[in-house]
Amino acid sequence: MVCGIVGLGLMGGSFALATRDYFDSIVGVDINPSHRETALRLGLVDAIARVKDLREVDVILLATPVRGIVATLKELAQLELPQETTILDFGSTKERIVKECPPQIRPQLVASHPMAGKEYSGPLAAIPDLYQNKIMVICNREESGELHLNRALEIYDHLQMEIVYMDAHEHDRHAAFISHMPHIVSFAIANSVLAQEDKNAIVALAASGFKSMSRLAKSNPQMWGDIFIENRQNLIDAMEAFEAEWKKATQMVQNREWEKLKEWMWEGNKLYEIM
Amino acid sequence: MVCGIVGLGLMGGSFALATRDYFDSIVGVDINPSHRETALRLGLVDAIARVKDLREVDVILLATPVRGIVATLKELAQLELPQETTILDFGSTKERIVKECPPQIRPQLVASHPMAGKEYSGPLAAIPDLYQNKIMVICNREESGELHLNRALEIYDHLQMEIVYMDAHEHDRHAAFISHMPHIVSFAIANSVLAQEDKNAIVALAASGFKSMSRLAKSNPQMWGDIFIENRQNLIDAMEAFEAEWKKATQMVQNREWEKLKEWMWEGNKLYEIM
Repeated sequence: MVCGIVGLGLMGGSFALATRDYFDSIVGVDINPSHRETALRLGLVDAIARVKDLREVDVILLATPVRGIVATLKELAQLELPQETTILDFGSTKERIVKECPPQIRPQLVASHPMAGKEYSGPLAAIPDLYQNKIMVICNREESGELHLNRALEIYDHLQMEIVYMDAHEHDRHAAFISHMPHIVSFAIANSVLAQEDKNAIVALAASGFKSMSRLAKSNPQMWGDIFIENRQNLIDAMEAFEAEWKKATQMVQNREWEKLKEWMWEGNKLYEIM
Repeated sequence: MVCGIVGLGLMGGSFALATRDYFDSIVGVDINPSHRETALRLGLVDAIARVKDLREVDVILLATPVRGIVATLKELAQLELPQETTILDFGSTKERIVKECPPQIRPQLVASHPMAGKEYSGPLAAIPDLYQNKIMVICNREESGELHLNRALEIYDHLQMEIVYMDAHEHDRHAAFISHMPHIVSFAIANSVLAQEDKNAIVALAASGFKSMSRLAKSNPQMWGDIFIENRQNLIDAMEAFEAEWKKATQMVQNREWEKLKEWMWEGNKLYEIM
């Protein structure tokens, strides 16, 4: 089997590394010439291709920002792909993708989101075990054809991933809480320290706690900005939920309501009972 | 040399494990009977002692909450300790300790804060390499006697720590930014998810990003509540700095000012240039 990967960044590149022994060959598409070059040089892909060449492959992975995925799906619909070609997409939000996928290729698409990532991006950041033991969310499975769903499951099994099925709308809401809002929080922490005159002396004391809380602020603003644009309303909801808790904490500290603050923290401890 | 450790939790216990080959013997003091028992059973200490027995030791480590450290310093001042006894304290905030240390033993005290920790507490959480390659802040060094400062440096060198000298007031301000405010943020993230009806489905998607951002919400509320009480004004300042950035982000998302939001994120990326 031949695989075509559109988007040779962290996600596409790591997928290539992890499926080297699964596919007979892998071709790659990327609008960024330096990504193409790096992906070839690192051996992530055997050849560089264009979208129209994807008529010849068995499995297509779309691993670009959501806007690019939607555009590529429209291009693919024009190509008269064989009906046996399976299309996977790893878009960060799913509702727009499943809605805007052209109906003639919708059964071929398995809308997926691997809950895996790193604060670094691009083909150089690709690692073979990015997906191992992570969760793969498959959205609106009933809209995918059986052949394609089964092929996707086989590939995800090869990646040693655990499958969770979810409605696309629900997925996007959850992703805002579990990933998008925490990214904004991390950037806000980074910027609050950088705004201080003595920022150098402050970060000289950074230990593991601060590193945990500021790590996501290393993430790529272009990529994450696009995710926030796509998921704006869910992000706003999650940010409001954070803000409600933040306000409670602020008031308790201001008013010296220490016992109440400790109770609020005991509540927070419970997260790890369900996670 | 004999060492006496007051407070057999994560910090005191890890110090004991790391200095087993440095001291001839270690005795431990703790108001919590189960901590005393665990510390003995794990071999963190050779014997359990009372504060008044510390007249017989060469080095005393105070590794309790700040309030307890201040109280113990007052007890020690009553004991007519030999002037050669070195006192180290690992309190999370330093200003109150250096101010309230009785003057007759102030030269014996080396006010220190290891920038090391874990989200778990108690003697069972103790590990031998907690302090290795971490930063040790020594506050108001000019108030410590030379003998005691040198002995402290020798011990911290044995722990393989890097020394940073700092004014106690400045330390407490920096700790609020680097540690105390981020803990409140992490608890607010945890509680914002726990407040959702579909919290179980949300955390089912948790990957490394969310785990980083919510890890500190596992911390002990009693211990952290006490730290917040001690450092309230600095904490409020750091929380206000966070809130200013958070408000900017909220407005940019609300108003769809995406380019401005991306610029704000590029700013955040710069944290790692200075850290």
